[in-house]
Amino acid sequence: MRPALALPGWGELVLREGVEPGDVRAIRELVAATGLFSPAEVEIAAELAQIAAREGEAGDYRFLVARAPHALAAYTCYGHIDGTRSSFDLYWIAVDPKLQGRGLGRRLLAATEARVARAGGRRLYVDTSARPDYAGTRAFYEGAGYRCEATLADYYAPGDAKAIYVKELA
Amino acid sequence: MRPALALPGWGELVLREGVEPGDVRAIRELVAATGLFSPAEVEIAAELAQIAAREGEAGDYRFLVARAPHALAAYTCYGHIDGTRSSFDLYWIAVDPKLQGRGLGRRLLAATEARVARAGGRRLYVDTSARPDYAGTRAFYEGAGYRCEATLADYYAPGDAKAIYVKELA
Repeated sequence: MRPALALPGWGELVLREGVEPGDVRAIRELVAATGLFSPAEVEIAAELAQIAAREGEAGDYRFLVARAPHALAAYTCYGHIDGTRSSFDLYWIAVDPKLQGRGLGRRLLAATEARVARAGGRRLYVDTSARPDYAGTRAFYEGAGYRCEATLADYYAPGDAKAIYVKELA
Repeated sequence: MRPALALPGWGELVLREGVEPGDVRAIRELVAATGLFSPAEVEIAAELAQIAAREGEAGDYRFLVARAPHALAAYTCYGHIDGTRSSFDLYWIAVDPKLQGRGLGRRLLAATEARVARAGGRRLYVDTSARPDYAGTRAFYEGAGYRCEATLADYYAPGDAKAIYVKELA
């Protein structure tokens, strides 16, 4: 349940399920540091972490956190979609910018998919922006086996469509 | 703010924004009575009503309720979609089966759209099932000016796709 990753300069990373109260601030800072999210989105990320810290396993939002000895390196937030039999949503994935490009996001996403599958999930959905500055994000999902099933024009804002990706889990 | 509708046998219907504690049980019974929703979905509808009764205007879920003197006739639940500039979701619309076919749903939906537009909403999204037994629901939205922008295969369950409808508000 707690596979270790070793990354040069960061020590050993440990995957942990759930959010501890001390993680909330680190999650807010990590999401802000990526530079990909608006201040409002940063607050949403922190709010989900607070809900998860409060409600634990009983809540709608599950977290998988990659912790280095003295820092939070990356995390995912995901959960079962209410009203569906076996569809899950990946609400958030964020990797510390200083650690990007080393495969950590990919490994964390795979570990998240494994947990979703064990929980009975058959489809994992991810929403992201179709904007040009999100091309790297979309390429990340496509490289991990996700396909864009639909786009919703002007969803986030005029000219900013939502792209809905999905991966069928084994 | 409180236009009245008169329906034979029901007395005068009044539209009211928000949920009062006594409405929660009536909302659960109304949603169950439509026969369109699973027990889990009925519980979700009641849970959203409880949240709205507790959080009021500050919450993410707004309600517009059509009340007859002694019964809850219909309601919508809607809200701004976090992370978007001006997109709203219609989470729920339900009309007492004994009142369906008299234009109440259409009038309630139009009144909801007017409130969304006044709150700055430019697009109202509705998710529904692409299953054959939801054809009446889809026809209702199409008749009200919604178009199906995307479908997600097997979203609710194998063979049960999600249809995403949207209406651009003036």
